[in-house]
Amino acid sequence: MSDFAQTDQNRVRRRPTRGHYDQETIYGIVDAALICHVGFAHEGVPYVIPTLHARRGDEILLHGSSASRLMNHAAAGHPLCITVTHVDGLVLARAVFNHSVNYRSAVLFGRGRLLADEVEKMAALRDFTERLLPGRWDDVRLPTPTEMKATSIVAVAIDSASAKMRSGPPGDDEEDYSRPTWAGVLPLSVQYGPFQPDPRLAGNIPVPDYLRNLTAGDSP
Amino acid sequence: MSDFAQTDQNRVRRRPTRGHYDQETIYGIVDAALICHVGFAHEGVPYVIPTLHARRGDEILLHGSSASRLMNHAAAGHPLCITVTHVDGLVLARAVFNHSVNYRSAVLFGRGRLLADEVEKMAALRDFTERLLPGRWDDVRLPTPTEMKATSIVAVAIDSASAKMRSGPPGDDEEDYSRPTWAGVLPLSVQYGPFQPDPRLAGNIPVPDYLRNLTAGDSP
Repeated sequence: MSDFAQTDQNRVRRRPTRGHYDQETIYGIVDAALICHVGFAHEGVPYVIPTLHARRGDEILLHGSSASRLMNHAAAGHPLCITVTHVDGLVLARAVFNHSVNYRSAVLFGRGRLLADEVEKMAALRDFTERLLPGRWDDVRLPTPTEMKATSIVAVAIDSASAKMRSGPPGDDEEDYSRPTWAGVLPLSVQYGPFQPDPRLAGNIPVPDYLRNLTAGDSP
Repeated sequence: MSDFAQTDQNRVRRRPTRGHYDQETIYGIVDAALICHVGFAHEGVPYVIPTLHARRGDEILLHGSSASRLMNHAAAGHPLCITVTHVDGLVLARAVFNHSVNYRSAVLFGRGRLLADEVEKMAALRDFTERLLPGRWDDVRLPTPTEMKATSIVAVAIDSASAKMRSGPPGDDEEDYSRPTWAGVLPLSVQYGPFQPDPRLAGNIPVPDYLRNLTAGDSP
């Protein structure tokens, strides 16, 4: 995998040592998240909408109702910003000023194209589903032509991107370390489960293994 | 508390029954989150940046380095979109098309003003800290004049906002309920802890009670 060029758009200005431009780091952050926040501008006003995403190579797949404002805007090829954030912990320092957050974030820029071809669209929907719920596609009713028509899928080619991360203990000023103030990190993580069966579940259908595997390691 | 007027900007178009415009619902979603995603547009290009936030009445407080692009853009009074999202669960339906996410999201629009007055700025920083870490302010070293100068605080007056939420089991098509496919919800929640003391912690300082209280109920 290669690096994204540093430009005025993607350069991490504040605390540049926390910035990363390699695809491995950026895509790792993207792939570990269920949702992203998509930004677009309309008549100078910014809009930020949360949505599910999936990565396919150097593209981010977004899907939604064909009637949604976000999908129509994305499909029209206007510039988009796609941001993914994981909050890993609160960093409690001895000085207010040195408090921080441990996090991993990725900010991606690109433009979308609507997948119009039915075969490509179905393949993308399968990729999307299998990324989020590996094994689910073969266990459920697949989309009808009417459902496909009601669904838009947009592939956003990533033109530029960067990641920014912080980890580890607080960094305090040397003279503050002797203070009798507790300092350290309060980690945050995402917990899955327990599974809640649909009240209308037919009979005693157990939770399949492919869903049980979901409960480890992923994060919204 | 009152309602935000429904306009072209904040109206929930897709699935309007999931839309809410009352401040109680919207502010509840905002207050339960540690971070938001702030969108701004520069030369037609959208930028979406994650950051901590605090609400003070009908304003959202943002803080950051005086040198940051986001803070400078926010301080200049350009239109902002502030979005807060909680992912509460994966909704596993019997049809691909009916899969969904349980979530609570709030989308706020407004413009920022830089807090220039030192007294107002210190008060806002205190509000900010106490919102995120109640009790912390009195336990830490407060900001020096130099640190205050390096910190910008912007108050964003909320002009327009809406919330969108989904909860509960999947909604499948009637003819799909008899399928032998497991359906239901996989809940997601944020777990705090365990506390990680700074390796340079002076002596045997215990985690204070006000920090222990943090571990219940909040969510990034």
